[in-house]
Formats: sequence, structure tokens, C-alpha cells
Amino acid sequence: MSTSSHSGGLLERMRGGELLKAAGAHNGLTAVLAARSGFDAVWAGGLEISASHAIPDADILGVGGTVSSLDSIISACNLPVIVDCDAGYGSAMNALFMAKRYFGLGAAALCLEDKRFPKINSFALAEQTLEDVATFCGKLRAVCSVRTSADQFVIARTEALIAGSNVSDALRRAEQYEKAGADAILVHDKTQGGERILDFASRWAGSVPLVVVPTTFYDISAADLHDAGFALVIYANQGMRAQVRAVQETYERILADGRSSRLENEIATVQELFDIQGLPAFQVASADFVL
Amino acid sequence: MSTSSHSGGLLERMRGGELLKAAGAHNGLTAVLAARSGFDAVWAGGLEISASHAIPDADILGVGGTVSSLDSIISACNLPVIVDCDAGYGSAMNALFMAKRYFGLGAAALCLEDKRFPKINSFALAEQTLEDVATFCGKLRAVCSVRTSADQFVIARTEALIAGSNVSDALRRAEQYEKAGADAILVHDKTQGGERILDFASRWAGSVPLVVVPTTFYDISAADLHDAGFALVIYANQGMRAQVRAVQETYERILADGRSSRLENEIATVQELFDIQGLPAFQVASADFVL
Amino acid sequence: MSTSSHSGGLLERMRGGELLKAAGAHNGLTAVLAARSGFDAVWAGGLEISASHAIPDADILGVGGTVSSLDSIISACNLPVIVDCDAGYGSAMNALFMAKRYFGLGAAALCLEDKRFPKINSFALAEQTLEDVATFCGKLRAVCSVRTSADQFVIARTEALIAGSNVSDALRRAEQYEKAGADAILVHDKTQGGERILDFASRWAGSVPLVVVPTTFYDISAADLHDAGFALVIYANQGMRAQVRAVQETYERILADGRSSRLENEIATVQELFDIQGLPAFQVASADFVL
Amino acid sequence: MSTSSHSGGLLERMRGGELLKAAGAHNGLTAVLAARSGFDAVWAGGLEISASHAIPDADILGVGGTVSSLDSIISACNLPVIVDCDAGYGSAMNALFMAKRYFGLGAAALCLEDKRFPKINSFALAEQTLEDVATFCGKLRAVCSVRTSADQFVIARTEALIAGSNVSDALRRAEQYEKAGADAILVHDKTQGGERILDFASRWAGSVPLVVVPTTFYDISAADLHDAGFALVIYANQGMRAQVRAVQETYERILADGRSSRLENEIATVQELFDIQGLPAFQVASADFVL
Repeated sequence: MSTSSHSGGLLERMRGGELLKAAGAHNGLTAVLAARSGFDAVWAGGLEISASHAIPDADILGVGGTVSSLDSIISACNLPVIVDCDAGYGSAMNALFMAKRYFGLGAAALCLEDKRFPKINSFALAEQTLEDVATFCGKLRAVCSVRTSADQFVIARTEALIAGSNVSDALRRAEQYEKAGADAILVHDKTQGGERILDFASRWAGSVPLVVVPTTFYDISAADLHDAGFALVIYANQGMRAQVRAVQETYERILADGRSSRLENEIATVQELFDIQGLPAFQVASADFVL
Repeated sequence: MSTSSHSGGLLERMRGGELLKAAGAHNGLTAVLAARSGFDAVWAGGLEISASHAIPDADILGVGGTVSSLDSIISACNLPVIVDCDAGYGSAMNALFMAKRYFGLGAAALCLEDKRFPKINSFALAEQTLEDVATFCGKLRAVCSVRTSADQFVIARTEALIAGSNVSDALRRAEQYEKAGADAILVHDKTQGGERILDFASRWAGSVPLVVVPTTFYDISAADLHDAGFALVIYANQGMRAQVRAVQETYERILADGRSSRLENEIATVQELFDIQGLPAFQVASADFVL
Repeated sequence: MSTSSHSGGLLERMRGGELLKAAGAHNGLTAVLAARSGFDAVWAGGLEISASHAIPDADILGVGGTVSSLDSIISACNLPVIVDCDAGYGSAMNALFMAKRYFGLGAAALCLEDKRFPKINSFALAEQTLEDVATFCGKLRAVCSVRTSADQFVIARTEALIAGSNVSDALRRAEQYEKAGADAILVHDKTQGGERILDFASRWAGSVPLVVVPTTFYDISAADLHDAGFALVIYANQGMRAQVRAVQETYERILADGRSSRLENEIATVQELFDIQGLPAFQVASADFVL
Repeated sequence: MSTSSHSGGLLERMRGGELLKAAGAHNGLTAVLAARSGFDAVWAGGLEISASHAIPDADILGVGGTVSSLDSIISACNLPVIVDCDAGYGSAMNALFMAKRYFGLGAAALCLEDKRFPKINSFALAEQTLEDVATFCGKLRAVCSVRTSADQFVIARTEALIAGSNVSDALRRAEQYEKAGADAILVHDKTQGGERILDFASRWAGSVPLVVVPTTFYDISAADLHDAGFALVIYANQGMRAQVRAVQETYERILADGRSSRLENEIATVQELFDIQGLPAFQVASADFVL
């Protein structure tokens, strides 16, 4: 089995009080764009990856439907990659084998959430069911048991607020998750104000760092989230949402105009694609090796 | 082996004088966007697919590195999918096995180009080497031998103009390719005016339809290309180029602003992602089947 | 999506009173060996496929870990392929997407069992938990809804006897499964005598054909099983068990002897491998197409 | 990217004068059988892997068609895995990307042969064409440039004797390959006596260890090959050839007898399959983690 060395000290930096930011990616291209923009890590998110296949974000893809996306992401950039593992694809044993595979691919961190398998996306208008704390802690311990270096870590994500519970319950869960071995806690919410997230952070008495995904409470800045106690802020889906709008408008304008001429100054050049693909380095190597 | 029924009469429509338009896609998401915009077909292009993995467009991926992208595209939309097969990944026998695999996945059409394996992208500043006509015709016959229904077809693409040859040579090649069984001819060029493409079409005496990819000669409209004799116009990479610019700007603005609030009105909503993923239909089916 | 046409009338033959036999396979090679021996169908079994990867038969592989094996099997032989779908990898929605994928690959039949996800192999010394009948019928209806031709069918497998229940319960379950749309019923057991299987068949009042896997009750002949009312007998794992013993002995003898000379007359020749690989046809095609 | 640590000092042991033996494998199961028998390494051979898919051994599978087999092998056992890379799947750049992928998966060693792409199996009755020495050395340097630890190495395989050339030419080639960076030399032949192989070894003046595959000259023992100067002896295909014969006979006897009863004492038990799959360890872990 291969061993990973991909974290680049991310967990240490989170512990050290730095404000870190991650951006979503679902393939090598978007991972490169995240890296070039200056983010500290890539979030290989289930919503982006399932959406890239036009498949619902509802535990359909599984490990085998996710690994090719992860391989594309991890191979393409030098940022540490945090993998959204949903509910671990079944029981603790499914989660265990998943963790071996994902850490084996070079993931820096795995993020496991406390929803019951099969999960559905947290923003969907659907019933959201939490896993029992003890069962989830078993899953967490299984995933933690697979870490093979100090540079791999596990984030426990509580969906308590998503599932209709309150901050106190989210805190109780998070405490148990830290005891079970989690290296960091992600507390998720989908209200617009973000008050409960801030309340959670202010009341957090644990010693592991906190992670947040401000999809709906986008008015709160990363600096404010950092001041509130969060070490890592994940912008999980804005890149893909921008892509959807841009491709839609491009395709509609081509059909409306009957040509792409008016777009040419607004879109990347083919040469920019080549740069993302590493064509210059490829050509240098070709000159060395192809005779 | 599974059999494909994906063309939806595309070749018949090309023969019937209709103006048809295809848009590039590299995964299910972009295929859905092409379909929703009103294009007639999807172009599963090598540049987009390799760029999506941040790998050079230089025959690195092969069949095995391409099938997961094709599967994502073909499963996601009801449009006929035309697969860019580069130079067939080696000899005629490599092309034969490739064709079985791609038609087996449900491809409507395969497009094989007359560059020597391993090819490099036509827009790259690199030497472009043409395959011998007889060798290429052997490849073409191999690929054509795999068509299992009248609804599957093969496009021969000549890179003569890309490789420094002239229109007369491109025409001579295209004639041979039609004789070898090609159902359509794609003539490629990378000059800005597109004069040679128009010249080619005006002198084309064959009976199979013509295809064109107006990446560099974007000022010529699809209607004008149709009047000149082209049946199918492929907008191969504008969608991805728009995506790159949009994701770059989004990621830069998030880092500059420290939050995504100013973007929210410019990007697709999470609900729009859900729609592309087919979440509404998923929830209807769930209500029927999950007890 | 591609459409399958792989059954070759298997279900019709089962209904017609013929005795049919299937053999296990986990890759193209073993599928070719099954076909050459004269079996009527291939059983793409979870035990063989998971064992081929040295992974426990406990719902670890999922759809994504199974499709490459299925593709290898389905592409290699002209026999109808019956896919062991375990418990459908989760809920009815997981089963639905699984069914689309497997039928899309060209499977003739899917076999869904009424154990709770994640299952463990029926022969394992472990607790075996049955799914609620209503929940399982929802899964069955989901899988049946994906059949796109009269030549694709669904087998419902009851593990009632495996899980400690009795023949009456197995019959009650089977009746419900037929009502939910199952085209055939597989009743499984692991006692050595096979009396309960025979009892089941004698009391079966449904109209769909019966299927049996005589792994432990190997003394009962296929003809006797047919007389008892079974239409299809599946030899699910004997091929792989023979392979394991043969490879073990071969490797041990090579190490003991320090060479393979004494084995040469007992093992297939390299030429026989070539024949299974289709090398002769490959060379004929090469002569036609490679110039 | 993940980093490999899989060689277990294999190259050091080869340099140290030990006699080492490798056995062929094409999946996790056969890799486990090789490891349990006491071999020192696994040979992930192109013949076995292509035969497992019933596809000709003629550069059809490529990287993408090989990685799932490699992943199964590498994940299943603790032996160092030597990957048969054929001719590198094209140019030096194809070989370079292949090497990144295979070392990234955890391969201990890559073996690159000096036939021209697309190759055909060395034992096939077909024309065997050698690559130019300089071109091949470019490929070798490309592959060697990807080694990321002292524990990864590259074997250059000369097919000079296979392609009708003589021992002197094979030696000249091998010298150049050592200069280009090869860590070991494999000299291949398909005569029955093996005299030329022995002659090669006696005249070898290089400093890197020698490797041999005694498929046709099976009368020469590993000890004699070691005395002649070979450090590593690879039994590349005997396991699969034994498997083919065993599965054939098993399937024929089941059909002839109408049942498997007479086989039961000759084939592995289901429990032996479970052991290979790691079911006992799985059950221990389940007891710990599944609540």
C-alpha cells in the first residue's frame, strides 16, 4: 500500500492559530485553480463531485465512484486535500475500507459526518437523520485507526444543527467525537445568519481545532469566523456554482449569436488551458526524453 | 456487450441539410448544460477531458483514462455524444478495441484524426505529424468495422492544414477517408480567418457531410459555415474556457473579500446544482421505493 | 445510456421447463472458461469477485468496485450474465442506480437478496439479518423499474433459511417478492442435505421459475434439482476454489523443485492462454487493418 | 501524490547476492497465494493481466486498463510488486506518465522492455520489432526520473533474443540501458534450452543485477540460474496456466457428473477463500468498531 505525505503540516497550522482557507474542487482542473488562487487546501466535496456527474448528492457514488475524482484532484496539485467522506458509505467497516483507500491515494484528511447512511445533501429539503453517537464514534475510531502518519488527520463533522437539533446537542456530540479520536470538528449549519455556528464556537471547550463551511451565512467574513474560534474556513461550492452560471451563459450566447466572437475576450484562452495542463513542462521533458 | 442507440438520427439529420451544433463537455454536468442550452449533440473532446484532469492533451489518458469521463457524459444527457478519439491510441488494433469500448458505452459517433500517435493538441506550438494515408485508412476501416447499428457513425478528421499541408492535400485525404468508410469528414484549421476551411468546403466533391470546429475563426457564424457546406459546427472548448475564467475570478474574489457575499447574485444557486443532479426526480422515486 | 441485449432468451428458457446451469466467474478469463465448458449462463458472484481482490464478501466493493469485473466478464463471452447484487448496496435508491449501471453494462439479470445492508457472506459464521419484507419489496420494485427490455430480468433471492428462519417464512417472502415484480426466485440454504430447499420447491405455488445454488448440498444432482422444480442451478464458487488449490500447489511445487519442469504437462500451455485471449482473431484483424 | 514504500529492500537483496524468486499475479487473490507460498516478490505481468480480461497481450489495455489490477495486487499483499510495463505504452512521455501512476500506486519496481509500441507477446508467432537503442534509452531515462525513493527501481528488459538478434547485441543493449539508469537487466528468451541466457550471464560485465523468466527453459533450476549470475528468477505465468487447467476440468466435471460432489475434496473450501479475503481480521475489527 502506498503511504501519503500530503498534508503539508495543515493540522499543525490549524492548531497553531493560523486562519486557513480551503476551496472546493471536483477534478484536477479546479484543484489547480484553487492552488493558483492561493488557498491553503482543497476540499474534495461530495456535492461538487456528485454534481460533476449529474448524480444526486445522496450516497450514490460510493468509494468506487469517487476515487477517480480524488485521484485527479490529488495528482494535479500540491495542496493538501481534505476528502468529504459523507457518512462513510455504510457501517464502520465500510468506513474503514474507505479510509484505507482514500489515505492510500494521498488524502491529507478525511471528514466523516454523523448522518445516517444513506445521507442526503444537507441543503436538500428532506429529512435529515443523525446517527447514534456511539455508532458514529465506532465509525470515527475505525477511520482514525487507518491514519499511518502524523500528517494524516480526521475531521468529525456534526450535522446536529442541520438535522433540527440545537447547539448544546452539537457540542455534546463534538465532545464525544474528540474523545473518539477526531483531530478536528466541523460544525455545519444552513441558516443565513450563522448565529448558531458562532454560539457553538464560543462555547467549545475542546482542544481540537474547529472547521466551518459558510455556504449560507456568507456575510460573515473568514476573519470574523477566525476571531470566533474557527481555524479552517471551507468555500465548498462557490467555484462550481460560478462555473455553472458561466457555462450556461456561454452556451446560450453562442446559440443566440451563432458564433463565439463576442465571448473571446471574456473567457480563458486555449493557452491558459495549456498552462493548467502543464504543457510547457511536458514539452521541456519531451525534448529531453523523446528521441 | 451492450449496444448503443444514442445517435438519435444525428447522421441522417446531417445528411438532410439541417444546420446542427454541438458543444463541448467533459463530464455529466457540462453535458447537461449543453443539452439544456439547446445544442444538438455533445462533443466529448480530448482537450476538455485532458484539461479536466490537468494532464496535457497529448495522448496520455488513453482509453482507460477516458472511459470514466465518457460514461459520466453519456449517462447524464439524452443528446448524441460524439467522441474525440484522437489518433486511436496507437495502431489500427488499438483503434479497433477503443471503438468497441466507446460504442459499447453508448457513443453515437467516433471522430478519428489522421495525426501520428502520440498526437499533441492541434493548437500547441509543436511539430504536428500526419499519419500515412494508407495507414490511417486501415485505422478508419478498423473503427468502421465496429459500428453495430445504422445509428452509430464515424467521422474522419484531417489535420492536414494543422500540420502545414494545403487544401488540396486535405481534400485528397478526405476523399480517401470517405472511400475507407468514413460517414463524415471534419477538416480542422487554426488560422484566424478560416479562408482555407471555406475553400475546402467549396471544393469538396464527396458525398458525406462536413464538420467544422471554429475555435480560431470565431468570426464566421454557424449560418455562414452552413451556407459554405458544413452540416455540423462544434463549439469544442468555449464552455471550459468560460469555466476557467469564472472559477479563477470567484476564488480570487473570495480571498480578496474574505467572504463570498458579493458573488451570491452572480453564481448559480445550490438549488440549481440540485436540479442538474436530478434531485427532484430522485426524491419522487425515493417516495415510491424507500420504505 | 447503452441498452443491453444479453439474455439470449434465458428467462424464456427457464419458463419453458428446460434445465439450465450457470457457472461462477469473476473476470473475462473465467467467463470464457464457463462458456467453453458448455454452461448456459455466467454467475458474476459477489464471493468470487470480492475474493479475486482479497477483500471480504461484506459489501465493501460497492458498485464502483464491481463494475470493472462485470465489464471484463460481459465483454469476454456471449453467455448471459447474471449479476449478484447483494443487498443492493444500501437503500432502494442505491439499488436503483446500481441497476441502471449494471443493466447499462449489458447484464442479462440482476439478483437482489433480502439481507440488510451491509450484508456478510451467507456461509460466514456471523449474524445474518433479514431486511423487512416491505422494505425489500421497495428495493425490488426499484430494480424492476429499470428493466428496459423483455430480455432483462430480476431474480429475488431470499436468505430466510440462511438467517435462521423456516421454509414457510421463505415461501411467504418469495410470494411477496413475486408480487413486487421479481421474474424468478432464488432460495438459498447452507445445510448439507438440502432437504429444506427441496421442501421449498415442492410447496412453491408461485408462477415464476426457481433458482438454486447447491454449494453445500452438492450431493443432489442438477437433474434431481430440476425434477424438484428448479429451473436454474448455479455452481457459484467451485471454479475459484479449484483455482486456489491449483495455484497453491503450483507455487509450492515450483519453490520445492526449484523449477517448473514437472508441472509442464499438467498446466495449460501459453498457446491455450493465447486462444482464450482471442489472439488468433486479433492476428487476422491485424493483417487486415495494420498497414 | 502518494509515495511508495513497497520494495522492502528487494534491490539491495538482489545486489547482495541472494537468490530471489517472484511469482506471477493478476489480482489480489493470486498475489496472496504467491505471498503465502513464500515467494520474495510478485510479478504483475502483462500476459496474466491481459489474459485475465480475455484480451490479447498486445498493448491494448494501457495504463487505464491496468491500474485496477495493480491496485488489487498491491493492496492485497506485503510483497514488493514488480510491474511489467511492456513498451511504456507509446513514447517516452507516455512512459513517464505511466511511471508516475504506477509508482504512485505503490509499485516497487517497473520493468520496461525494448520492443516497439504496440508490442505483441514475446511467445506469439508474430514479428517482434525492437526499439532503437537511443529511443529506448530516452524512455528509460524518463521512467528512472520518476523514482522518488531509494526503494523504487527500474528493470530494463531486452527482447533482443526474442526478436531474432544475438547475445552480443543483447549485451550491447544491456550496457547502454545500465548507462541510461537501469537498476537491473532482464534478458528474455524463448528457446527451450536456455543456452543463450546462460551465455549472456557469463559474458555480462555490468554492475547491475540480472533477472530471468524461465518460461520455456524450465529444466534449468533457479539455483543453476543463480550460479550462472541471475539474482531474480520470475515464474511469470505457471500459476495462471494451472488455474486455467483446473477451472476447465472443474467445469467439465460438474457438467459431466451433474453435481460437484466428487470435486469437494480436491478444491479449496469456502473457508479457505474467507481466509484469503481476510474475513477473520474483518470480524475482529467489526467487533471493535460496529456498534
